[in-house]
Amino acid sequence: MSGTLYGIGLGPGDPELMTLKAHRLITGAKVIAYPAPDTGDSFARSIAAEFIPEDATEIPIIVPMRTQRFPAQVVYDKAAAEIGAHLSAGRDVVVPCEGDPFFYGSFMYLHERLSRSHPTVTVPGVTSLTAAAAAAARPLCARNEVLQVVPAPLPEEELTARLSTGEAAVIMKVGRHLEKVRTVLSALGKEDRATYLSHATLPNARVMPLAEAPAKAPYFSMILIPGADPYATS
Amino acid sequence: MSGTLYGIGLGPGDPELMTLKAHRLITGAKVIAYPAPDTGDSFARSIAAEFIPEDATEIPIIVPMRTQRFPAQVVYDKAAAEIGAHLSAGRDVVVPCEGDPFFYGSFMYLHERLSRSHPTVTVPGVTSLTAAAAAAARPLCARNEVLQVVPAPLPEEELTARLSTGEAAVIMKVGRHLEKVRTVLSALGKEDRATYLSHATLPNARVMPLAEAPAKAPYFSMILIPGADPYATS
Repeated sequence: MSGTLYGIGLGPGDPELMTLKAHRLITGAKVIAYPAPDTGDSFARSIAAEFIPEDATEIPIIVPMRTQRFPAQVVYDKAAAEIGAHLSAGRDVVVPCEGDPFFYGSFMYLHERLSRSHPTVTVPGVTSLTAAAAAAARPLCARNEVLQVVPAPLPEEELTARLSTGEAAVIMKVGRHLEKVRTVLSALGKEDRATYLSHATLPNARVMPLAEAPAKAPYFSMILIPGADPYATS
Repeated sequence: MSGTLYGIGLGPGDPELMTLKAHRLITGAKVIAYPAPDTGDSFARSIAAEFIPEDATEIPIIVPMRTQRFPAQVVYDKAAAEIGAHLSAGRDVVVPCEGDPFFYGSFMYLHERLSRSHPTVTVPGVTSLTAAAAAAARPLCARNEVLQVVPAPLPEEELTARLSTGEAAVIMKVGRHLEKVRTVLSALGKEDRATYLSHATLPNARVMPLAEAPAKAPYFSMILIPGADPYATS
C-alpha cells in the first residue's frame, strides 16, 4: 500500500492564512519535504514552522537559486526518488508550498514525477493575487471583468502587448524587472493607477503607489492594475 | 469606537478549505451578514454553517436572483445601513464570502459603502481558480506563463478574441453560457484540451473533458484551458 503525496498550499505568508486542511495535514505529518534555497531558510517551511511536528522526517529539496534547467531537473529527480521511497514504504509525504501548489509553484515537478505511481492530492491555498488585493483594499476583479496575470520576466514588447488592453492585471515576480515594468506602464499611461506591493500579509509587507516603489524590489513583489473602475455601477 | 467590518473569504466550498483566520473570526462572531438568494439557502452561510455561534445576530442580505442594477443597489444600501448601525455601536460585523471577497465577489458593494467610515479588513480566501486546478490534477500556470481569467457572459466575439492567444485560461461563470463557450473553443481548435468542472471541492463536484460536459451547466461551473504544456521542460 503506497502512502499518499500531498501538495499543500500554505497561502501567501501569514501562517493564519493557511487552510484548516493544510493545518491538519501538517500537524499530522510524519514525512515533510519542501523546497529550500542553497543559502538561507525555506520560505515554505517558515510559514508552516510552528505546526511541523518535532519528530517529523524532513527532506529539504535544495534548489540552487541561479541554476540552469538541467541541474534543477536533477535536483527534482533525486528528491522524487527519496520521496518515492517513503511513499512506497506506505508513508504519506506532505509537501508544503508557499501560495498554491499549482499557481506558479514548483510542486508540479514532484507531481509530474510521482503522481502516476502514487496517490497524489493537491490542497489549494490562498494565492498572492487575492492577498495583494486585500492588502491594497481594492477588488481584484468584479462582475464580467477579464483578469490577466502576467509574469514580469517576459520581454518588454510582450509585456506591452499584454498590458495595452483595458482589463485588470496583476504583474507577478517583479523583483529585478521593476524598471522594465515601470517603463512599459509609463508608456501605456497606466503608471499612476498601479499599486506596488511586496510580502503582502507578512510583517514586512509594503503597499504603495508604483511611483513610490523602492529602487530595489524583492522577488516576491507585485504590481496591481485595476480594470474598469470596480465601483463604476454603484 | 467603531467596530470593524471583516470581509472573509471562505474558500471554494469545502469548509476545511477556509483559513485559520476565517475560522477564528467566524467562531467568534457576534454579528454576521451574508448574501442570500430570495429562495433557497445562502451558499456562503452553508460553507461557514458549522462554525457560526448559535447566539450570533444574523443579517441575511437578500439579493433577488434576477434583478436589474437599481434594485440590487437598493438592497446593498439597506444592508450597509443595518451593518453600519452595528459598527457605529462598536460591534464588529463579519461578512463570510464564498471564495475570496475581492475575486468576483459582492463584498465590494459593502466595502465601497462602509470602508470610508469604519475600519475594514479583508481576509483573502482560496479561489475557485486553484481549487479547480487541484481537482483537475493539473498546474494552473507555471514559470513565465500568462494566465487569463475570462467570464463566460462576455459576448462571443470578445470570448474568441481573448481565447485565441496561446496562454492558459480559466473561463468562469459558465452556467447557461456553456454552448456559446463550446462553440468558441471548437472554432479555435481548443475544445479537446479543455476541462469542465463544477462545484470543485464539494461532494457533488464534477470534473471531465469538455466534450463530456452535461447539457445544463450550473452557475458555479468553469472551464480550464492549459497553456503551453506545463511539463514541457521536464
